[in-house]
Amino acid sequence: MSLPALNLTADPIDLTAALVDIPSVSHDEAMIADAVEAALRTQTTGFEIRRHGNCVLARTNGGLPTRVILAGHLDTVPIVDNVPSRRTVTDADGDVLHGCGTVDMKSGDAVFLHLAATLDAPAHDLTLIFYDCEEIAAEFNGLGAIERDLPDWLVGDVAILGEPTAGQIEAGCQGTLRVRFSAAGTRAHSARAWMGDNAIHKLGRLLTTLDAYQPRRVDIDGCEYREGLSAVGVHGGVAGNVIPDEAYVDVNFRFAPDRSPEQAFEHVREVFAADLADGTLTAVITDSAAGALPGLANPAAAKLVAAANGRFRAKYGWTDVSRFAALGIPAVNLGPGDPSLAHRVDERVPVEQITEVARILRDYLLVG
Amino acid sequence: MSLPALNLTADPIDLTAALVDIPSVSHDEAMIADAVEAALRTQTTGFEIRRHGNCVLARTNGGLPTRVILAGHLDTVPIVDNVPSRRTVTDADGDVLHGCGTVDMKSGDAVFLHLAATLDAPAHDLTLIFYDCEEIAAEFNGLGAIERDLPDWLVGDVAILGEPTAGQIEAGCQGTLRVRFSAAGTRAHSARAWMGDNAIHKLGRLLTTLDAYQPRRVDIDGCEYREGLSAVGVHGGVAGNVIPDEAYVDVNFRFAPDRSPEQAFEHVREVFAADLADGTLTAVITDSAAGALPGLANPAAAKLVAAANGRFRAKYGWTDVSRFAALGIPAVNLGPGDPSLAHRVDERVPVEQITEVARILRDYLLVG
Repeated sequence: MSLPALNLTADPIDLTAALVDIPSVSHDEAMIADAVEAALRTQTTGFEIRRHGNCVLARTNGGLPTRVILAGHLDTVPIVDNVPSRRTVTDADGDVLHGCGTVDMKSGDAVFLHLAATLDAPAHDLTLIFYDCEEIAAEFNGLGAIERDLPDWLVGDVAILGEPTAGQIEAGCQGTLRVRFSAAGTRAHSARAWMGDNAIHKLGRLLTTLDAYQPRRVDIDGCEYREGLSAVGVHGGVAGNVIPDEAYVDVNFRFAPDRSPEQAFEHVREVFAADLADGTLTAVITDSAAGALPGLANPAAAKLVAAANGRFRAKYGWTDVSRFAALGIPAVNLGPGDPSLAHRVDERVPVEQITEVARILRDYLLVG
Repeated sequence: MSLPALNLTADPIDLTAALVDIPSVSHDEAMIADAVEAALRTQTTGFEIRRHGNCVLARTNGGLPTRVILAGHLDTVPIVDNVPSRRTVTDADGDVLHGCGTVDMKSGDAVFLHLAATLDAPAHDLTLIFYDCEEIAAEFNGLGAIERDLPDWLVGDVAILGEPTAGQIEAGCQGTLRVRFSAAGTRAHSARAWMGDNAIHKLGRLLTTLDAYQPRRVDIDGCEYREGLSAVGVHGGVAGNVIPDEAYVDVNFRFAPDRSPEQAFEHVREVFAADLADGTLTAVITDSAAGALPGLANPAAAKLVAAANGRFRAKYGWTDVSRFAALGIPAVNLGPGDPSLAHRVDERVPVEQITEVARILRDYLLVG
């Protein structure tokens, strides 16, 4: 396959289709990064362009008072017979582009690339970051690599991630915490159960507590966050005739960004205080990532909300927004596509959302 | 590993150690079966010997008025750093052989093999059955395979299983029933837990009920039976960020022989009636085996009780005794080792029990 050409001045709908047609499953982004880099170098002016692994970076250095970061990942989840893209027009669904990445998140990338090539005299300096390996374990994340290797590229007054939000600003993100609750017992033959101490039986109270738990909803900066406390795994058992001496439940707590990971863990410990106090269970953190406060009070973010007709809501899922928040940069998600269709075989985007997001961002970036 | 040599005329204590030193976890008994077969073929006389899968069969055909079946399984539960065997002598515990299978039931196998090679003119015809896959689901049981494929080998007047009884006759056995209780739900991203329906959370009430359950004790023919109801496995979970749509608990009910398997299942359904009635859980039988009533009134069994100085008690564990009971053959368990130490990391047998069981059986088999 020779290097596919990308026409950045074309309609961003067509540019989305062209990006979808370049397969770029995580760890396999070289081709799409080459195409994006070549297009930026030949079809934009005024940008400093840099390649770093399979990340492509571009920024203006116009000495403007504010800098806006536009960031999007180039990778997708594995393809399931849903590439190349196809476009359908029906009475029921209107004009729709189908394919892996149409939602998550090549439509967002297309809008950013189109604006870089077509915006005449934006009011802000711009930094574009196209990165790899977002859909897999955090250790591979290309934005993390930029943060480590090229931190001066992550400077700005506001960051916009093109993650799917159906064209509505989604602010902040919830944090995530995984805790393993383990029970210990004494192994024995199940024919003489009284000689043993069954670890699985000790999980009952925790699961009953989980089943009855009422998660909190909280309003922060006008965004409603909705927490969740869920068992995501349970395991125990040695053999069909053995009283097991070990069993555990993995609990995932998705918490609103007014809690730190430490406070989140403290809350989880309170919920299961009875089991922890009497030694029935022990708790160990296995994974944790901070949330991000919405930060919509920040002037640069407030202008973006205005450009989006004042429509915004909380982001529930964890996204790279929290990386910018940790750097002190207000960050939001804004992109075409229904996030609940991401990672699905029938991933698809109404093309009008691509047009609308391009319109919002054009308006925002042209006004100081 | 070349084929290990077994010396059948050695002290059965040493023969036990040699058998323990050949790992033979269920489904991996080829090596030990090869070694047993080779030893029987070269070190015994007067036996018809037959190999069937990983079962090794041997019988005399002397036309004697009675036939005694000696049966033992060759497999063990998984090894946990407790092979090879080791022997210790301490003031506190005396002379003890340690290792996986010392109790369940290579010491019993060793006694049978030793007697086959050393008994001079027994008063009964003998049938020896060494079989595989006793420690796992009944469908794999080697004795079941013999029953299906070679039923003429399961003919006799009394059957002695070498299962651990600490050298005391244990009569009858409890039945065993395994039931899988499954919960169904709806998968969703854990960041939006309210979109899903968590199957794992639905297991809490069942486990809490199990934890509080009081098992029954019952006297039958002078033997006290003691039931047990235990979770032996629990599993659920898709990924660390997914609300799981499936989860289950495997429950094992060990029941006294005054219940049939059908009555046992009815009891289990009553215990978890609330979960079944409201559709939280569904129940499916995954394994079931009837118990066996003690049957000590039979003359051939009574002589064996006499040889054991009249000492007998109930067998708690399910054993293949019930297979013989179903065929109309009086059957008992008699073997070295404390059954409560079976399946444990610290499994071990006082060697004097091996000597004593060999003595009891030698006396019994030499007298008509």
